[in-house]
Amino acid sequence: MASEESMVVVTCTAPVNIAVIKYCCFFGSTDNALAGSRPSTASGPCCPSQLRTTTTAAISKDFTEDRIWLNGREEEVGQPRLQACLREIRRLAQERRRTQDGGLLLPSLGYKVHVASVNNFPTAAGLASSAAGYACLAYTLAQVYGVDSDISEVARQGSGSACRSLHGGFVLWDMGKQADGKDSIARQVAPETHWPELRVLILVVSADRKLTSSTAGMQTSVQTSPLLRFRAEAVVPARLAEMIHCIQQRDLEGFAQLTMRDSNQFHATCLDTFPPISYLNDTSRCIIQLVHRFNAYHGLTKVAYTFDAGPNAVIFTLEDTVAEFVAAVKHSFPPESNGDKFLKGLPVRPVLLSDELKAALAMEPTPGGVKYIIATQVGPGPQVLDDPHVHLLGPDGLPKPAV
Amino acid sequence: MASEESMVVVTCTAPVNIAVIKYCCFFGSTDNALAGSRPSTASGPCCPSQLRTTTTAAISKDFTEDRIWLNGREEEVGQPRLQACLREIRRLAQERRRTQDGGLLLPSLGYKVHVASVNNFPTAAGLASSAAGYACLAYTLAQVYGVDSDISEVARQGSGSACRSLHGGFVLWDMGKQADGKDSIARQVAPETHWPELRVLILVVSADRKLTSSTAGMQTSVQTSPLLRFRAEAVVPARLAEMIHCIQQRDLEGFAQLTMRDSNQFHATCLDTFPPISYLNDTSRCIIQLVHRFNAYHGLTKVAYTFDAGPNAVIFTLEDTVAEFVAAVKHSFPPESNGDKFLKGLPVRPVLLSDELKAALAMEPTPGGVKYIIATQVGPGPQVLDDPHVHLLGPDGLPKPAV
Repeated sequence: MASEESMVVVTCTAPVNIAVIKYCCFFGSTDNALAGSRPSTASGPCCPSQLRTTTTAAISKDFTEDRIWLNGREEEVGQPRLQACLREIRRLAQERRRTQDGGLLLPSLGYKVHVASVNNFPTAAGLASSAAGYACLAYTLAQVYGVDSDISEVARQGSGSACRSLHGGFVLWDMGKQADGKDSIARQVAPETHWPELRVLILVVSADRKLTSSTAGMQTSVQTSPLLRFRAEAVVPARLAEMIHCIQQRDLEGFAQLTMRDSNQFHATCLDTFPPISYLNDTSRCIIQLVHRFNAYHGLTKVAYTFDAGPNAVIFTLEDTVAEFVAAVKHSFPPESNGDKFLKGLPVRPVLLSDELKAALAMEPTPGGVKYIIATQVGPGPQVLDDPHVHLLGPDGLPKPAV
Repeated sequence: MASEESMVVVTCTAPVNIAVIKYCCFFGSTDNALAGSRPSTASGPCCPSQLRTTTTAAISKDFTEDRIWLNGREEEVGQPRLQACLREIRRLAQERRRTQDGGLLLPSLGYKVHVASVNNFPTAAGLASSAAGYACLAYTLAQVYGVDSDISEVARQGSGSACRSLHGGFVLWDMGKQADGKDSIARQVAPETHWPELRVLILVVSADRKLTSSTAGMQTSVQTSPLLRFRAEAVVPARLAEMIHCIQQRDLEGFAQLTMRDSNQFHATCLDTFPPISYLNDTSRCIIQLVHRFNAYHGLTKVAYTFDAGPNAVIFTLEDTVAEFVAAVKHSFPPESNGDKFLKGLPVRPVLLSDELKAALAMEPTPGGVKYIIATQVGPGPQVLDDPHVHLLGPDGLPKPAV
């Protein structure tokens, strides 16, 4: 389809970001599609390194149309958010060419693009897959089209919180003041090396796709939940300042308490939406109980949970607590099959749970309630992968067959 | 144990009350045990007639101690709430004797009392059993001790919302202004005959006892939920006025919408409590979805749900919708056993669900999710039962053997 010589191909990865203070998104009253979504307040997320999107973009004069494959399946390229990203990146490329007086050998802006993207985690299950996906798309497109200006705006055309995935470490998303939301960008509060003991465990409860997309859900919440506006105006700003302080001080207890309270309050506003939105299920609630009992047993808040728009739990704890907590999860949710690996990501040494802790958990075991755990830590932002073997598109510009 | 002649025995029933605007309870800062719980705002409940507590109280000079049996099991009579009720009723009896100058032949206040109480519905499963129980206790004690003054205060020593069960029909619980909460009483907004078409269906999801008692849960919510105070101050007062208007106008659509929104917001504040409280389970959430889809299919809010401190749903609808909605519940939650009667209370004629409605519900059936349905309607307040055969205590002052 495309001769190798005429094709520019780049592969990048971008991390999933998990908000520890959940954003409250209000939409501009003028043009949602162009303005994208914007937060009414900032939010302070972390970026687990093991949960990443990998995206390959290729442009060639031989391509006859824009095409996109997500997790191996070709998707409709005409969808508005995708089109908005493409339009914006081409606009930025054109701007650069104009200002830099054509000094660089830029590929033609008329070239069509092929994009392939895969996630190493369940898609659309409340694990911020679309944020990572659009961040990676924007970052990769910027590489192939030679754009080196700020691409927050591009990523945000796809997913409001995607701009957070353009940074590593601990990121703050400022709401900005402009009506068009153009100053609503993300900035790094601390690099990924700041708190090396912090660990992030993803407890995958269900890989099913969720019923309500988080964007649609948030829109309904803004329109119908009296509690959401109060939360955005009266609760979140102070929490955000406190959270930044906890991160800067590496204060796990403060960080953990605030993370749990804020997750609960976010889901409270979902429930206050009409019709109500429930992302948590009975297993999520068992995990919440498990965490509180684990902490009560230790007389110390050693572990925190947070849930995004789905039933999967994201657990924050320190390195020295991971092994015992994973054992507590296995005790409460005995793995159903031995075929699949229950524990993915960072290695976790197996430990035996004390009888005292087992008694304190007082959990009726729910076999298979947690499908698997991904152990990870706060990681870097988007990166270009130099190894040509990782390209998801072959020399013909089409997805490589799955190995 | 007691000679029949010397024993005064009375049997009464009191209804369960279901709040359609949920109360937000703040406690007096001085003496919780004496002040009892009090609402920060009023709430407007209904009293289903088929869900009732029946209580027999007997006093005799031959009794050597106060004793109480709940659902056939003897309970600790020394528990503070029970003691507070007994103390208060004896105080009122003494007051009456004093003011009425001993004109009536009152039994001795020194007589010990035996009490037996049964519910015709699951106890402590979020069906306001303690409210009905304490209302019935206070009402029955008032009969045997010859108290004819207002006994709201007595009932409230046991359960904050018990004073609502002292009236039939539609009841409003005023928060009052006094610091000791003594003016926090319930009054009738409309009698049980006001809206004869209104039907109340109890969908019993689980008869398990709940983990958090609603009183303890509410205390934690008051202390930890930022959303609860906002709700109490900024949301509930207007909703209450709107609800009274809807009841007066017999406006089912307004009544139903408000009932659902307020139930959701109450559970949102439970989730915002720390540690969070979850009364709803996956089946509750399926019922919520079922109701919204049922209404969407009809293009009209014909059915409302509300949940108290448990997973069981209370459904409000009109007489002409009951049969179709019950069929929809049976379709979504196929009864597991044919041995038990799935439908209790008022008769419901079986109807076939249209294929269109089945398709619109789009529910994966959950066999056994709903254990049974109690069909009922708004009913009267406490009543004395004249038939001596209904006494739960025998001539010896001990519980009659179960038939």
